[in-house]
Amino acid sequence: MRGVVLHAPGDVRVEERERPAIVQPTDAVIRLAATCVCGSDLWPYRGIASVDRPTPMGHEYVGIVEEIGDQVSMIRPGQFVVGSFFASDNTCEICRAGYQTSCVQRQPGAATGAQAEYTRVPLADGTLVATPELPPDDLIPDLLAASDVLGTGWFAAVAAEVGPGKTVVVVGDGAVGLLGVLAASRLGADRIIAMSRHETRQKLALEFGATDLVTERGDDGVARIKDLTGGLGAHSVIEAVGTQESMMQAIRASRPGGHVGYVGVAHGVELPGQELFYSHVHLHGGPAPVRRFLPELIDLIWHREIDPGRVFDLTLPLDEAAEGYRAMDERRAIKVLLRP
Amino acid sequence: MRGVVLHAPGDVRVEERERPAIVQPTDAVIRLAATCVCGSDLWPYRGIASVDRPTPMGHEYVGIVEEIGDQVSMIRPGQFVVGSFFASDNTCEICRAGYQTSCVQRQPGAATGAQAEYTRVPLADGTLVATPELPPDDLIPDLLAASDVLGTGWFAAVAAEVGPGKTVVVVGDGAVGLLGVLAASRLGADRIIAMSRHETRQKLALEFGATDLVTERGDDGVARIKDLTGGLGAHSVIEAVGTQESMMQAIRASRPGGHVGYVGVAHGVELPGQELFYSHVHLHGGPAPVRRFLPELIDLIWHREIDPGRVFDLTLPLDEAAEGYRAMDERRAIKVLLRP
Repeated sequence: MRGVVLHAPGDVRVEERERPAIVQPTDAVIRLAATCVCGSDLWPYRGIASVDRPTPMGHEYVGIVEEIGDQVSMIRPGQFVVGSFFASDNTCEICRAGYQTSCVQRQPGAATGAQAEYTRVPLADGTLVATPELPPDDLIPDLLAASDVLGTGWFAAVAAEVGPGKTVVVVGDGAVGLLGVLAASRLGADRIIAMSRHETRQKLALEFGATDLVTERGDDGVARIKDLTGGLGAHSVIEAVGTQESMMQAIRASRPGGHVGYVGVAHGVELPGQELFYSHVHLHGGPAPVRRFLPELIDLIWHREIDPGRVFDLTLPLDEAAEGYRAMDERRAIKVLLRP
Repeated sequence: MRGVVLHAPGDVRVEERERPAIVQPTDAVIRLAATCVCGSDLWPYRGIASVDRPTPMGHEYVGIVEEIGDQVSMIRPGQFVVGSFFASDNTCEICRAGYQTSCVQRQPGAATGAQAEYTRVPLADGTLVATPELPPDDLIPDLLAASDVLGTGWFAAVAAEVGPGKTVVVVGDGAVGLLGVLAASRLGADRIIAMSRHETRQKLALEFGATDLVTERGDDGVARIKDLTGGLGAHSVIEAVGTQESMMQAIRASRPGGHVGYVGVAHGVELPGQELFYSHVHLHGGPAPVRRFLPELIDLIWHREIDPGRVFDLTLPLDEAAEGYRAMDERRAIKVLLRP
């Protein structure tokens, strides 16, 4: 089969690889209908995370179940399924509390890489959620978004306790931030302030439900948020970047007693304890337990109540994955969908 | 009047000072029935926080209202009142959300120092809560505890989302940690693990409702907590110290999805973003909005349902304040009550 392998920073190749097979009796192998490039794939692509050997890439996936292990009982060959970037048993105490990405059996969800024609998914019964029937083709980008960026933006909004009566700030205008806007809108926020200085992303933010745009960043951005919130700060802040600046911007944009939901993978971030203490914010986040939200998100997509697939503004055949990485790296595309 | 002044690290003097008078029309002046030495008073006493001039000390207070400003309407002279270490208007949006210690008008609650015969309290209507009538003498230590350490332990337990079915860890066996145990017990926790290696504090923790004691600290302490919680960690962790070690111990003792309520003033603490991200904990804390809890806590004390005053294991006349500071510094006393 064909699959994407990162050989070194900037060196993305689509190669002939061995087609994955069942290894554990709880595995499934799926044939991918679509996959995509994640913002987090750019960390090794840019050499910020190390690449010490050729690495199969990709962790976002939807597709049709090809084969299942002996102990898989809830997922059947032929079903169209959506999974998440971490596999989970969905039965342990941590999963039942809604933290499937910290499942006691946690492991990569696309064990052999999802930017490929096929992938192996461990713990299939706990990880995969089937759609009611085979989806029409135009829903595939939406369902693919659910497998990571939508679920992540949704978790950030839930972690930030977004709801009616709340003013929400979204730090980050990547796919996750934009879908954080969509989640905040669906969850009933009164006011959604998107922090973005890119016209195409601003436009999508407004279409997803943003009520205000702030183009300033850092201290100036925080000052603008205070201006817009009677000097108090927002009730809820979604942090979808993961840098020191963005985390501090999120904490400082929140009012005392407010909630920061952070889902940007914190690279080299150090939070100053004393400032955090006096900020009085609630801080919650981490790798989004997408599995918790999948049934609800699939349902909303199935009934065409949300259209998260609009974050994919470039679609390429899998064989052109290298161009997909380049387009995301250069911010020419918000998010790139790959068709195997 | 007599009042405590810190002249330099270790140099506590009880001096003749000017008796405070009404300055703002929203002020009250109260005659103190009791005051005490706080763990946080030890920061400047030990020279960890700077002392650049003679400083009146004390921020925990109960007493009888002597005089009120023209705009005070809810508090009357002759009432016995309990206040908190920050004054608050109790009407702004932040106060109404329960974060009175971040009130838009926040200022020190005992403007002229509480370790004295009298103190001036700003924003009296929003800051002070009166008891139903003058209390019997034996309730005074309990009411004094409510003014800071009980309210702080209670907030930590609420911030840690303590409740029925939960396993709670308490990091810190000072007065706040011990009253965090009491709060956890009152809030219905199933299991309360107190981390303490001091026999008298262990004893009080058990009497306040601790079900388990852990004497190990740091990584060993975390390993013990994991042993006691099926490898998962606690649902709720109360952090009542404020050092790098204690914060990390609290975060690591929590399970994914668990809640850390931290009330130790974070001195020089830096939280590693990536570890926090993958820990999946909820983090909330800061200066406890004691005012939020005062009506409920006074009621519990008035009906003798809780006895938080037991944390005062040494009572001295105000004139012996220096010995009170020494006893706390040397950990000979958990908490020292001073009688003006």
